[in-house]
Amino acid sequence: MRASIVGAGMIGLACAWELLRRDVEVTVYDPDPGRSAALVAAGMLAPTAEANFGEEALQALMLESMRRWPAWAADLEAATGQGVGYRTEGSLLVALTDDDLAEVRRMVEYYRRAGTPIEPLTGRQLRELEPLLSPRVRGGAFAPGDQQVDPRLVLRALRTLPIPVEPLEIGDLSTIRDPVTVVANGVGAAALTGLPVRPVKGQLLRLRGAEPLVRHVIRGVALGRHVYLVPRADGELVVGATEEERGADTTVTAGGVLDLLRPAADLLPGVAELALAETLAGLRPGTPDNAPVLGRLGEGVLVATGHHRNGVLLAPVTAQAIAGLVTSGSADVDLAPFGAGRFT
Amino acid sequence: MRASIVGAGMIGLACAWELLRRDVEVTVYDPDPGRSAALVAAGMLAPTAEANFGEEALQALMLESMRRWPAWAADLEAATGQGVGYRTEGSLLVALTDDDLAEVRRMVEYYRRAGTPIEPLTGRQLRELEPLLSPRVRGGAFAPGDQQVDPRLVLRALRTLPIPVEPLEIGDLSTIRDPVTVVANGVGAAALTGLPVRPVKGQLLRLRGAEPLVRHVIRGVALGRHVYLVPRADGELVVGATEEERGADTTVTAGGVLDLLRPAADLLPGVAELALAETLAGLRPGTPDNAPVLGRLGEGVLVATGHHRNGVLLAPVTAQAIAGLVTSGSADVDLAPFGAGRFT
Repeated sequence: MRASIVGAGMIGLACAWELLRRDVEVTVYDPDPGRSAALVAAGMLAPTAEANFGEEALQALMLESMRRWPAWAADLEAATGQGVGYRTEGSLLVALTDDDLAEVRRMVEYYRRAGTPIEPLTGRQLRELEPLLSPRVRGGAFAPGDQQVDPRLVLRALRTLPIPVEPLEIGDLSTIRDPVTVVANGVGAAALTGLPVRPVKGQLLRLRGAEPLVRHVIRGVALGRHVYLVPRADGELVVGATEEERGADTTVTAGGVLDLLRPAADLLPGVAELALAETLAGLRPGTPDNAPVLGRLGEGVLVATGHHRNGVLLAPVTAQAIAGLVTSGSADVDLAPFGAGRFT
Repeated sequence: MRASIVGAGMIGLACAWELLRRDVEVTVYDPDPGRSAALVAAGMLAPTAEANFGEEALQALMLESMRRWPAWAADLEAATGQGVGYRTEGSLLVALTDDDLAEVRRMVEYYRRAGTPIEPLTGRQLRELEPLLSPRVRGGAFAPGDQQVDPRLVLRALRTLPIPVEPLEIGDLSTIRDPVTVVANGVGAAALTGLPVRPVKGQLLRLRGAEPLVRHVIRGVALGRHVYLVPRADGELVVGATEEERGADTTVTAGGVLDLLRPAADLLPGVAELALAETLAGLRPGTPDNAPVLGRLGEGVLVATGHHRNGVLLAPVTAQAIAGLVTSGSADVDLAPFGAGRFT
């Protein structure tokens, strides 16, 4: 059996791997295989659905993918001999002021509705877990079930798999002769399929110190600004991410950097001493309801795009569902809420 | 006549050019000729002496060098056919809050004592001159005599002059056979001469937009943080500069970038939209009183270092005084207050 995949980002390569595991001969097409919206993601695996989509369906998909991540990471590491930075210390939700605490309580409620463990903590309890948090931190919560991976390492591992990647731009799906094609090229799906996928700009920073300032992922709110801080074992601290409606612009701006550094330093003052190692911007594929588009698009054409901020989190469940559709005609999760038909 | 210069930064090359103009055969030594503390300067030419030095002598030297800059820039442009970005729009001193206005009044007093023109302005008057200043700006002043050059262009022009630059590290002055050697290697002068020159770290940002947000140089104070914004004609906006006592460290830090971007965006909100094109850090040569060391150091050895934040401003007067000492034994300004002897 043969299949083609358009797009060599996180979702395209994840689909390719799942097809490879099912003995499908797969070719991936991407004119610039180094790109992926996952490069501007920190790899925090936490339930964080957007409010403008029917919450339950997306929440259920996210939780299912979180359940699959441990085995998926282990399998990928075993298949490639490469680490993907999978960690399970959990997240701390952290609020600077009373107003910020109200926002964090809203996030806590979301965890509760999702049925995932969440434990409110005082500022003092937070500082016992992470002594370098600002003494001004007012309170928050501990989410022990949150996980993280390093998206760069996941991509690096996926790229070492024996999957041919052709550096070709596919401008017309009819040029592909394979019986099945999976459209997984992120924001590029709009031009290729007419689906209402728009670019949502994200800016992200990589800071670097001699050793980690924190052990947990920090999901913070400071003076109304949201930020997450994801520590890596080597002293890197990823600070993300802005969410901007600017078309296809990938400029790193002064305002984007400021919007990330300000709350980061408010919550964790030691951030100021870290080297600003890298600034970057990328384009996430957003849809009108910011939930992904997964499933059949036409005869021999499947689609997996529109993952917005959740591409890394949703990679395992997306890839396994798509692989199921290709090989047996049915997915192992209910994709009905995510069909392309909802936009017509 | 022959002379050697140690250091191919702004001061070393300026001295070399003045010697070349007096028909001295000059060789410059620098193991890394691309470096210069001037690369982390914005090129604002304004009287801004440090308080811990006898004010009058340094102030007089700065004013004298400001008087010489117009002709020096014109001569350098004529000699090289290269522009150096010399501009005379003047500076605006800008305060965000009442407390910041008190600090700006102190700066205004300094201009008055220096005898240079300065005109207090209300917030409204400032916004008439620069409509994109924040509506929160409380007040400030206009300094019509302030000038600017682009230090990168000055260095580029100086490097095109027919002056041999040898990429050699001079570890011992006795290895140089020329009758006169000028030590002008910035912080490197400490190791070479034993002078108490220390590195003062400066971080600086280059932002970029389609067109300039302001016409004037902005010297701002916002919530106690000092910043200057220097616009170039091509849409670049230089934001400077931190002043940090960190030894020889040249890491660009999250805190340094934040300390510059925050007041910049407070005073000129449009800064947020600009691309963060470049972040850099360099080492200024500071002395115990933060005034330069200029003059004789020993038999056949002259020194010109310790310019701290004022190397670009003081380049013409420094170079012409040193060239006078080399060729006629006397400088055209009084260097007595700047002698190395004051540190022994």
